[in-house]
Amino acid sequence: MKLTVTEKLLTEMFARFAPIGALPGGGVTRLAYTEQEDAMHECFRDAARALGFRVWTDCVGNSYAAAFPEGTQGYTLLGSHLDSVIEGGEYDGVAGVLAGLAVLCELRARKNPLPVAVAAFRCEESSNFRVCTVGSGLVTGTLEDDVLRAASDRQGVPLLAHLRAHGYEKDAALLRGCARYLELHIEQGRVLQERGCEIGVVSAIAAPHRYVLRLNGMAEHSGATPMPLRRDSLCAAAEVILAVERAGQEEAANDSVATVGAVENRPNVMNAVPGTTTLQIDLRGIREDSLRRLEQAVTRRVEEICARRGIDYALKAADIKHPVQLDEALQRALCAAAETAGLSHMVMPSGAGHDAMSFAELCPTGMVFIPCRDGVSHNIREHTELSQIENGVLVLLHLLSGEA
Amino acid sequence: MKLTVTEKLLTEMFARFAPIGALPGGGVTRLAYTEQEDAMHECFRDAARALGFRVWTDCVGNSYAAAFPEGTQGYTLLGSHLDSVIEGGEYDGVAGVLAGLAVLCELRARKNPLPVAVAAFRCEESSNFRVCTVGSGLVTGTLEDDVLRAASDRQGVPLLAHLRAHGYEKDAALLRGCARYLELHIEQGRVLQERGCEIGVVSAIAAPHRYVLRLNGMAEHSGATPMPLRRDSLCAAAEVILAVERAGQEEAANDSVATVGAVENRPNVMNAVPGTTTLQIDLRGIREDSLRRLEQAVTRRVEEICARRGIDYALKAADIKHPVQLDEALQRALCAAAETAGLSHMVMPSGAGHDAMSFAELCPTGMVFIPCRDGVSHNIREHTELSQIENGVLVLLHLLSGEA
Repeated sequence: MKLTVTEKLLTEMFARFAPIGALPGGGVTRLAYTEQEDAMHECFRDAARALGFRVWTDCVGNSYAAAFPEGTQGYTLLGSHLDSVIEGGEYDGVAGVLAGLAVLCELRARKNPLPVAVAAFRCEESSNFRVCTVGSGLVTGTLEDDVLRAASDRQGVPLLAHLRAHGYEKDAALLRGCARYLELHIEQGRVLQERGCEIGVVSAIAAPHRYVLRLNGMAEHSGATPMPLRRDSLCAAAEVILAVERAGQEEAANDSVATVGAVENRPNVMNAVPGTTTLQIDLRGIREDSLRRLEQAVTRRVEEICARRGIDYALKAADIKHPVQLDEALQRALCAAAETAGLSHMVMPSGAGHDAMSFAELCPTGMVFIPCRDGVSHNIREHTELSQIENGVLVLLHLLSGEA
Repeated sequence: MKLTVTEKLLTEMFARFAPIGALPGGGVTRLAYTEQEDAMHECFRDAARALGFRVWTDCVGNSYAAAFPEGTQGYTLLGSHLDSVIEGGEYDGVAGVLAGLAVLCELRARKNPLPVAVAAFRCEESSNFRVCTVGSGLVTGTLEDDVLRAASDRQGVPLLAHLRAHGYEKDAALLRGCARYLELHIEQGRVLQERGCEIGVVSAIAAPHRYVLRLNGMAEHSGATPMPLRRDSLCAAAEVILAVERAGQEEAANDSVATVGAVENRPNVMNAVPGTTTLQIDLRGIREDSLRRLEQAVTRRVEEICARRGIDYALKAADIKHPVQLDEALQRALCAAAETAGLSHMVMPSGAGHDAMSFAELCPTGMVFIPCRDGVSHNIREHTELSQIENGVLVLLHLLSGEA
């Protein structure tokens, strides 16, 4: 099988998306439920409509395109997202949505009437609300109510306020008729590149366990407060940051990672001993036992550090997810499709979270990884060749066409 | 000697200042060269004018009041500042300016024509420009040109742009006719409280050595970047924060302190390994040899940490000052004045920097400390009793009146 329209479509669509949220030094910032994400969705819908597909949105702000008529049951959904992290790249999420659109175009070019829809989900990244996979979580009913109610953006605007602007209602948000879910995504790691592999077939998705740790010490004059009298919240935070790193290193053999991604310090000036420091802690793993050990290690160390330093603390779970196993039959079928397409492939876990997590309990769910340069993602240097996205489109097309 | 007008003056003036930059939870934010500092100066000048004193400003924005005619030589200047740190208290600086105004009033009430002026200096705190004692430094010619040119506020507006709004010219800024300088200030430490002392006579002022350290690692996806492949700038920063603390602890016996007061982290989100982290490092001491050891320890550790972690770094000096010895004859006279006033007193170093540093090479310079509750300053909980300010006014008045 040879792709006929994908290269042109990808080239044109990346060019249309390029100015949205573009940064002077390269890369993009398209935070969830901001005007940049809105513009991405509008651009996607305009293009899909111009291509002749039926286009619709739901009451959460997710966008869809399909050739089949409304009310069709048992279709395959190809999804991903259009938002980005702060100073991110233009392939994370977007590659999957465009791969879906390319599949629709290729099927039509072949006059193949398979019921396939493309979904562009809102708010997959946790950068704006500290909660991930919001759009796909709402349409599958997998986003917990309390998480939804507690989330607010970086300006303090509640997530629910953004959703209401799209007419959100809990039951109306649920997606109907989807028989299976497939997602193409850049790997965001360097395993494929190091192994020289063109396609990764994902076996399981690591679960993020996220915490916000608030440390309260005592803000004082930095010149006049002798060292032994201090209760410096930033020094306590520094010990916690290194403890989280060490815990991650101890579980590295089990494919777990542990990160303090964000710090907020107050009053955060040259001449005051820091009084309050807040850390965002991200633990991830594909094994529940490893995640449990990570959490225990971090909790124990936080308690020990704060007790020793006279620091009050509050450690709150912000988002707890479970590792997700993907459909084994689909994994085999995707491997066979890659084989038929003549592409090198391997089965691998995903360290990053994806919209596919929201679907795994609902219907058979599979994921295709393509390499990204040096494994770099969530960074303005993120890059993937169009030919690598085309490889992924070919695998999806082989799978759907049953030619595998 | 008994004060006759001070209590009323202090009560009224603190009430007039109170709303300026007031925070909902208590405390104030009156950053240098913002509308809040402007309002403080306007309020001070209005009050001094209403009290019948001659009031003027200079081309830097400092405010002055005196009973003597323009052109008088050989006067004593009583100075301090009206700006604050972010989330600071209402006594730091303000107590000294109001003590000066009280001295003017008490002298007039006694029909004592001693030539005394009060100065309210701009930008004593480094919170807005990372540079301290700007107003007093400019009028004494002790602020280095390169520091002046490099400084900009938290919004990126250059210090020079703010100064030009006041008509700044280098030579015109220089203060004329000042024969000696005295400053009352809250201690901002808890030595006086712990010793049960009412008055501190300052022997030397610790020098701040300030650095900005920029650490460049690699921002990557926090879920998909295995621990051994990371170059996490925040983890490197955490090691530096603890190294600075340890260096300070090792020099604590020499009255030195070392603080990382501020951290800025990028991209600073839950789901990315931090790529760039910037730290503001504040080293202070009254002994040059101790400061040198602090600097060497920090420099060596930064190099070692960054080499081991593959982090690029730039360590830049932001502000280097030298410890300042205050006039010994004035110290003896201030002790005698406290003795005459019947106030308990001690000679002590100052860990914090003050406007007095700018004057020590120009003319005989002395400082009077009064206690603040629990030594807390640069904090909304900062508190000093009016009676403690009155004690300081009494000491200054005894010294000036030659009644000591």
